[in-house]
Amino acid sequence: MSTPTTDIDRILSPDSVAIVGASTDKTKRGHQAIVTLQEGGYDGNIYPVNPSADEIRGLEVYPTVSAIPAQVDLALIVTPAQIVPQVLEDCGETDLAGAVVVAVGFGETGTDGEKLEEEIVSTAHEQGIRLIGPNTSGMINVHERLNLVGTDTVPEGGLALLCQSGNMAISLFTEAATRDEVGYSYYVGVGNEADLKFHEYLPFFDADPETDAVVCYIEGMSDGRSFLQAAREVTPETPIIALKSGRSDVGKRSASSHTGSLAGDSAVADAVFEQAGIVSVDRSDELLAVSNSLASLPAVDGPNVAILADGGGHATLAADALTERGLSVPPLTDATKDALREILPDAASVVNPVDVAGGTDEDQQVFVECAEAILADQNVDVLLLSGLFGGYGIRFAEQYTEVEIDAAAQLGELVTEHETPIVVQSAYEGFNPEPHAVLREAEIPVVESLDVAAASVSALVTYGKHRRTADAKSDFELPERPATTTSGRTTQLSEFAAKRALEAESLPVTPFELATTPEEAHDAASAFDGSVAMKIVSPDIVHKSDAGGVALNVDGTAVEQTYNELIKAASAYDPDANIEGVLVSPMREDAVELIVGVVDDEQFGPVVMVGLGGVFVEVLEDVAFRALPLTEADARAMLNDIDAQELLDGARGNPSVDRDAVVDLLCSVSTFVEENQNIAELDLNPVFATSEGVEIVDASISMVGESTLAHGEGAEILQEESDD
Amino acid sequence: MSTPTTDIDRILSPDSVAIVGASTDKTKRGHQAIVTLQEGGYDGNIYPVNPSADEIRGLEVYPTVSAIPAQVDLALIVTPAQIVPQVLEDCGETDLAGAVVVAVGFGETGTDGEKLEEEIVSTAHEQGIRLIGPNTSGMINVHERLNLVGTDTVPEGGLALLCQSGNMAISLFTEAATRDEVGYSYYVGVGNEADLKFHEYLPFFDADPETDAVVCYIEGMSDGRSFLQAAREVTPETPIIALKSGRSDVGKRSASSHTGSLAGDSAVADAVFEQAGIVSVDRSDELLAVSNSLASLPAVDGPNVAILADGGGHATLAADALTERGLSVPPLTDATKDALREILPDAASVVNPVDVAGGTDEDQQVFVECAEAILADQNVDVLLLSGLFGGYGIRFAEQYTEVEIDAAAQLGELVTEHETPIVVQSAYEGFNPEPHAVLREAEIPVVESLDVAAASVSALVTYGKHRRTADAKSDFELPERPATTTSGRTTQLSEFAAKRALEAESLPVTPFELATTPEEAHDAASAFDGSVAMKIVSPDIVHKSDAGGVALNVDGTAVEQTYNELIKAASAYDPDANIEGVLVSPMREDAVELIVGVVDDEQFGPVVMVGLGGVFVEVLEDVAFRALPLTEADARAMLNDIDAQELLDGARGNPSVDRDAVVDLLCSVSTFVEENQNIAELDLNPVFATSEGVEIVDASISMVGESTLAHGEGAEILQEESDD
Repeated sequence: MSTPTTDIDRILSPDSVAIVGASTDKTKRGHQAIVTLQEGGYDGNIYPVNPSADEIRGLEVYPTVSAIPAQVDLALIVTPAQIVPQVLEDCGETDLAGAVVVAVGFGETGTDGEKLEEEIVSTAHEQGIRLIGPNTSGMINVHERLNLVGTDTVPEGGLALLCQSGNMAISLFTEAATRDEVGYSYYVGVGNEADLKFHEYLPFFDADPETDAVVCYIEGMSDGRSFLQAAREVTPETPIIALKSGRSDVGKRSASSHTGSLAGDSAVADAVFEQAGIVSVDRSDELLAVSNSLASLPAVDGPNVAILADGGGHATLAADALTERGLSVPPLTDATKDALREILPDAASVVNPVDVAGGTDEDQQVFVECAEAILADQNVDVLLLSGLFGGYGIRFAEQYTEVEIDAAAQLGELVTEHETPIVVQSAYEGFNPEPHAVLREAEIPVVESLDVAAASVSALVTYGKHRRTADAKSDFELPERPATTTSGRTTQLSEFAAKRALEAESLPVTPFELATTPEEAHDAASAFDGSVAMKIVSPDIVHKSDAGGVALNVDGTAVEQTYNELIKAASAYDPDANIEGVLVSPMREDAVELIVGVVDDEQFGPVVMVGLGGVFVEVLEDVAFRALPLTEADARAMLNDIDAQELLDGARGNPSVDRDAVVDLLCSVSTFVEENQNIAELDLNPVFATSEGVEIVDASISMVGESTLAHGEGAEILQEESDD
Repeated sequence: MSTPTTDIDRILSPDSVAIVGASTDKTKRGHQAIVTLQEGGYDGNIYPVNPSADEIRGLEVYPTVSAIPAQVDLALIVTPAQIVPQVLEDCGETDLAGAVVVAVGFGETGTDGEKLEEEIVSTAHEQGIRLIGPNTSGMINVHERLNLVGTDTVPEGGLALLCQSGNMAISLFTEAATRDEVGYSYYVGVGNEADLKFHEYLPFFDADPETDAVVCYIEGMSDGRSFLQAAREVTPETPIIALKSGRSDVGKRSASSHTGSLAGDSAVADAVFEQAGIVSVDRSDELLAVSNSLASLPAVDGPNVAILADGGGHATLAADALTERGLSVPPLTDATKDALREILPDAASVVNPVDVAGGTDEDQQVFVECAEAILADQNVDVLLLSGLFGGYGIRFAEQYTEVEIDAAAQLGELVTEHETPIVVQSAYEGFNPEPHAVLREAEIPVVESLDVAAASVSALVTYGKHRRTADAKSDFELPERPATTTSGRTTQLSEFAAKRALEAESLPVTPFELATTPEEAHDAASAFDGSVAMKIVSPDIVHKSDAGGVALNVDGTAVEQTYNELIKAASAYDPDANIEGVLVSPMREDAVELIVGVVDDEQFGPVVMVGLGGVFVEVLEDVAFRALPLTEADARAMLNDIDAQELLDGARGNPSVDRDAVVDLLCSVSTFVEENQNIAELDLNPVFATSEGVEIVDASISMVGESTLAHGEGAEILQEESDD
């Protein structure tokens, strides 16, 4: 059964709603849902459905959805899990677009629940219906006052919330409720993602005029690859901010028992989110503030932040918080400094951070004058105003509140005029003073915490960069992955077969010859200058070193004897192994060792990894990930993600590495895996990198089933050679 | 002039205060200070001082402090900087204990200001007076309503605040003001620390019954070593929490312009704070919450945290936040799980995190029942309750507020009964609901942010561990450092001299011989098994490799020729160098390379550093610091601070390192530097570590002036040998 055409507009913005499981009992969800819709002011038609009631709160009750004598767009199903299939079955004769299934007891509870979940999805699809949930707290269209959750009134605003935990949603609503001018356009509790998935909501929110940004709380995704694809199309226009939980092992345990879906590895998730232009947040207390900043403010052109503080402590702490997040706090130009000196007292610091040193104590209009001077500075991409703004009326004298309200409005005008964002941090944010409401109305975010302010600025810079460079990635298209790649048995290619396959696709492999006799080994070694590396070739021996099957730095005179020793050791290690010979390669030295690998992530499909080899991978886990396929920009960004990347640039007497060659290699690996979709795993370790280029010194490939590589080179060659 | 005996009680808890610079002008600080004291309800005597006024707000005005006909404990001096020396001069005939100098224009402004600062300190000391400031917003004794700052009323509580920024103090007061039951006992704006320094307040706060914890905001310390000493004595009883700013380069620029003192390196500060039992906080938005938790709660016995959440999202995020901070979220015992199953619905998760899955929606008493079961679990050292507690009355039904108030009180009783802390995170904290006030009154901290809650739990665990182990460190005493070590020219010892000195103190140095002829080199090499390392010995050549003065893996037959080559290369490199010969040592292999060094930190004096050698130090900066002298526990903790410490334990085919031997080496180095206080810098790089022990392979020592090492070995030997 294929997925029916989805009318997401009718699901998220329905003109009529059926409440299936409507109840006359005031304590039941099926009653409260109607109360919430009526009292909330929903304009559409409400159709209670219950076979044994006639009227609820003045509304006619229907025995079934199909008995409703009008078009129904959406059903809220609050019946127990077991009844859901029957309810959906009944909807076949209607033109229902979607249903929200609230009940628990599906995929999150084990095998029986999984079956029931499959049943409701297939039944729904048969009837042309798409499902939200199950195991969801519901859905809210805030602007149309369609609240199918029954929570307090949700503050109205520009954030669309896709959330995999009802309580997190309540937290986020509550956090916004104490702040003027921060709020939501939609809430969708995606629940178990049995049918409608995270990515399917994104185009709707992107097109929705009420939505300025999409906020995602994700425990585990059932189709991460499509999410990346959809996000990549949306983020050039609409920011997406994601908090991914289940990052720890214990966290995973809990996520699993909660949503029934496996939580992914945060290293992969953060990287692929970045690649798709999604802004990752790793603290729940930063999610709303960061999202609100991205929803409000103009795009940022660069990483240079000016700090305007009304105290040295805030100035210093702000500089710490920004630079620790990789932002730049550059000196202001002489012209700006001169302008600030005119405005501020002698004790002020005008370098950056700017410390007004009491200059605003008696006139907060001075903040506007300083901001104006700073925003005119070509070096400044964003301004962080830190300290007590908005609290002067509380702290010093009541009449200052009016001055601050005035100043707040003018700051808003400056943002519009200069198209440069201002973020305000104020110790008085908890008081929710009037000047802060004015700031927020003027789309200037205000937060209490300096660290959260810095995180917001950082997100603005990150997202600004993505918007500037997103065009370059517009041809990005994630390939369909065959289902076979994520299951089924795999075949390990021998190093020889793997290298032949890579070489056939013009990937840079160290020269190699397969020798099947001591004499062939000697001839091969003679053809290479200097000493050689010799490695046993057998599809049955994966860990060649463990088998005594590797000899390095073999001198020309010792090649034949070494050949015999390797064969003997490998045969002793595994008497049944099919030994095809010995691979002979020239020794390479004075290179930086890299590892390049491709693995199939359970949420995001094939991802490529790069890192410095050895201890950097195994002990420090200093690696970078991206989803396939890679753009050149992606590959370059991967290298910049490596903590010890200084080692690529000649640190500690290492050769300076040709980064372009590494980038080429990563892109070639991407193409190679794209064109050979039955590759289950690929490991190039080590890759030697120098200023001259890169060389794959060892390679390991495993494939799904018995499949061959593209054009069959790998397997054919393997076959040919082993037939010899 | 020596520092006068300090009566810190009379300074921080004065019975009488003179306001020097008192004014009839209502807009002046010298007037407002009197208003604040009178209206705040200060019980002591207030003596305005102004030569040209008779009466201010009903108080008799005196022309000078010495004209006051009664004992005065403390003076608040609000005159301009230039007049301060004269004011202090006049106080000589009084019994004044201290003065708060508010004026700016001292050390923070440059050379002239520094001179003036020195002048006021020496004048004060001549008169037996100690100074707070200058460049301070003042001092507050909250419980005695002595407010010398003129800020809003500061909420009363158990936190003593030592703060180097007036605006940070306002931020922290404001943050507390929006939360019931969080507040301060004292505030001291330490300002430029010209006289009274951070450490001098600590014993007073430790003894003060109103103070439960000391909170420090530090930009730069003028006597960090004494602070560590004092903190070490205080922290076993009273927690100290510190936020150190100026961590970034830009931050340093601002800190410098603000307080005139240099901000230190955060790596060093964090480490030496930990060593002294101080809890470091690196986000300003965590300082108050963490401090409040430490002030309120009983000591924690271990790192095992139980999570009780009313939603899967909070459960998962809490687990993430705790495990990312290195805490443990272990499974509960079967008995606890059984007990929880009795209480909670079937859908609940009872493993840990515990997710009540709706079990508290209609009865919040269930939180108490769950908490009781969890606190009875022997595996649980601390409980984090996360979600909506305190908000059920807001979210669901008003009558729940009473239930939550009740539950809050019972949770408080559980903490007392089990002596196990509970930390509460609630999305409704911003509403400041009544149940939260009850929790706080019961000494259970409540915060809005899950991450801040996790940081609080982490701080409780860190501090709990310190209290348990602090006794083992009670003999810790920091030595007085001679002033000469931080200035003056230094002399570099040759490697030979350095090694002789180390060997003389029984430090494990690789065997070595100084050869002054090729024949001596040959004889030395013959005495060692296998090939040797040969290095030029010259006090004038520090970078031996650059001079071509190092040969490794020299075969016995090549030693004489190599000797000549090394001498030739070194002479060519520096024709004027005094070349003493060539050091011959056996080659060592298959060891883990370490670096051990001692540097003189400008704030904290001599600190020892250890790290894995090479790239780990130079690129990854993966090192650990501690102040000297080290205890064995300190040394062991250093190794645990190294990120890549896995490499000490046999990772990646490395030899497993004898950690005890490394600990011994670090302690020996500590003793060596203690006993030779004119060592300016010491560098043991590399040290080879194996399962057999450690060996110092290369050593470099520089000394202050021409001084010799203890007993003169180093220099004497150097002298003897070069006389040969």
